[in-house]
Amino acid sequence: MNEQGRFITFEGIDGSGKSTQARLLAEYLSAQGREVVLTREPGGSPGAEDIRKLVLEGDPDRWSAETELLLFTAARRDHLERLITPSVAAGKLVISDRFADSTRMYQGLGRAALRGLVDQLHELMIGREPDLTVLIDMDPEVALERALARAGEEERFEAFGGEMQRRMREGFLALAKEFSGRFVVIDGGRSVEEVAVDVQRAVSGRC
Amino acid sequence: MNEQGRFITFEGIDGSGKSTQARLLAEYLSAQGREVVLTREPGGSPGAEDIRKLVLEGDPDRWSAETELLLFTAARRDHLERLITPSVAAGKLVISDRFADSTRMYQGLGRAALRGLVDQLHELMIGREPDLTVLIDMDPEVALERALARAGEEERFEAFGGEMQRRMREGFLALAKEFSGRFVVIDGGRSVEEVAVDVQRAVSGRC
Repeated sequence: MNEQGRFITFEGIDGSGKSTQARLLAEYLSAQGREVVLTREPGGSPGAEDIRKLVLEGDPDRWSAETELLLFTAARRDHLERLITPSVAAGKLVISDRFADSTRMYQGLGRAALRGLVDQLHELMIGREPDLTVLIDMDPEVALERALARAGEEERFEAFGGEMQRRMREGFLALAKEFSGRFVVIDGGRSVEEVAVDVQRAVSGRC
Repeated sequence: MNEQGRFITFEGIDGSGKSTQARLLAEYLSAQGREVVLTREPGGSPGAEDIRKLVLEGDPDRWSAETELLLFTAARRDHLERLITPSVAAGKLVISDRFADSTRMYQGLGRAALRGLVDQLHELMIGREPDLTVLIDMDPEVALERALARAGEEERFEAFGGEMQRRMREGFLALAKEFSGRFVVIDGGRSVEEVAVDVQRAVSGRC
């Protein structure tokens, strides 16, 4: 393979279908003969998955927002060093379900208003943005219904009410404007197949 | 108790006797009627101890120097928020076996030359210095003999050779000059009792 490696992320509120779309894109690009690495955050490398467990297990108030931010940043640094950077350097397409934009939202806008701190820590310890970010945009009412229907492992992330979901949607759309060079916004409020075709169109020509 | 809370740290190379001296000072001040909290890093609070386990267990190369730095900073943030700050605010004397100066040495000078990054991360996420730092200074040859004699739980920290021990000693002495307002340097190359008396003298009048 002489094709150039790329780092693509999927973002969106809980229940938006971004995980499904990340998987479908990975399958589509693999079928095209590309070497694809499908991963996720928090986690994605063995060390980062251990940190993920440490953060998400136990009492939700076990960690302050700032400590949680440091732990997620440690996990991201490991994920980046051990999986993302070497895979992209080897010419692979890395597709990650969530990355730093989720931290900008959930720690920067959600649990606490730490956006300034989030940005400074990102610049200091991560410093890498995706080549392309696919935002699956969706009406929070629809997303919340989907999220509640599959509450389980991701319970802590899903536990936001409707008002929080609305703020997150607006936040993600604002991020897409702030980083307009790498963001593509896809309307997620249609069938899985229709959304997948739009994602494929947005990605092709960029990888 | 109306006495003012204070945050005192002990630093020094492995085998310098700082843990013993921290404990002896805690016993001495308790006997004087002060409320004392004896703690240690990495760790010191339940969450920070869990992070400590994650960092110190397994292959020494499991984490990069930068990821390790983020994990230790997360542990320190938790230790500070949950134990040190509230205890000092309640008028207690908090005595910690190691704090940020150890990170300045072991991550900033030892494993990797990350001192600039260590300082920026400290300023961003910790921002607190001890009121008093007792450096137990010792000849590295003597310290190494002591360290090897009690190799066990702390194996990873003890595994430095003589040359590294010499660099660390010089580094700690340079830190004592850099932060001369809060550092006291005590000659650790004498009997435990003699050193303890010097520590008591240095601390009394400051707490």
